[in-house]
Amino acid sequence: MSTDLTTRTESQVHELLDEVVAAHAERDVDRLLALYTDDAVRYTLAPPLQQGPGTQYGTAEGLRDWFAGFTGPIEVEYRDPVVTADGDVAFVHSLTRMTATPAGAPEPFSLWFRATFGLRRIGGAWRIVHRHESTPFHMDGSFRAAVELQP
Amino acid sequence: MSTDLTTRTESQVHELLDEVVAAHAERDVDRLLALYTDDAVRYTLAPPLQQGPGTQYGTAEGLRDWFAGFTGPIEVEYRDPVVTADGDVAFVHSLTRMTATPAGAPEPFSLWFRATFGLRRIGGAWRIVHRHESTPFHMDGSFRAAVELQP
Repeated sequence: MSTDLTTRTESQVHELLDEVVAAHAERDVDRLLALYTDDAVRYTLAPPLQQGPGTQYGTAEGLRDWFAGFTGPIEVEYRDPVVTADGDVAFVHSLTRMTATPAGAPEPFSLWFRATFGLRRIGGAWRIVHRHESTPFHMDGSFRAAVELQP
Repeated sequence: MSTDLTTRTESQVHELLDEVVAAHAERDVDRLLALYTDDAVRYTLAPPLQQGPGTQYGTAEGLRDWFAGFTGPIEVEYRDPVVTADGDVAFVHSLTRMTATPAGAPEPFSLWFRATFGLRRIGGAWRIVHRHESTPFHMDGSFRAAVELQP
């Protein structure tokens, strides 16, 4: 792929991530779901192992419930995302910070995690076909999720 | 991309996963590292948030230490990997089972987790530029890694 095309694809992928950020900030379920293909497979921070069209984060109702668990905007920040692309397929990985206030909580929390998106360009628009978000966990026998890490 | 090319790429990506499996079964550090680009970014089950060329799982020595923590083969099974590819870029995601016996332990353990690989074809060979492996964690306030899940 030429340098110009690569640069244009990278810009488009960054715009997609900006849309993910905006959809969370506004807690707009339709705006968020519009970014996914219908058969997208998500590996989320919460169980189960994977989520598809039939599970919580694959449906408008489930996402609405999740958004309703927070007060005010859900802030998502992608730190220096790295894009790899050719033709109509791309993936991007990024350390990510989410800051949000759980409903009823006095203060927001901040969590750093890892995010990988698998993308396909369909009819000229980049869509999420796979999303993987996680924290590591401590290997000291505690099996605690490492939610306190910072880059 | 034509159907024939897609099928050939999918076969090649499956062969790469077979190599990952073989390298773990034989605990062969050089065979495993040969599959990665030098600048690959790994999001591993263990902290830190990300591992690159300078951290444990990016070096032969670190991987040798990790392999030495187990007795006998480390069995890795990819369950129905899904490949998305165009040209020289691909990504693949798969639920994954690892079965291994920690050094000194009487019995092996089995762990299901999620794996995503970001790949680039370089000089005709598919190489791992990004690898993301994780379990989810429980959202019940315990922050326990969900290591007991099964597909």
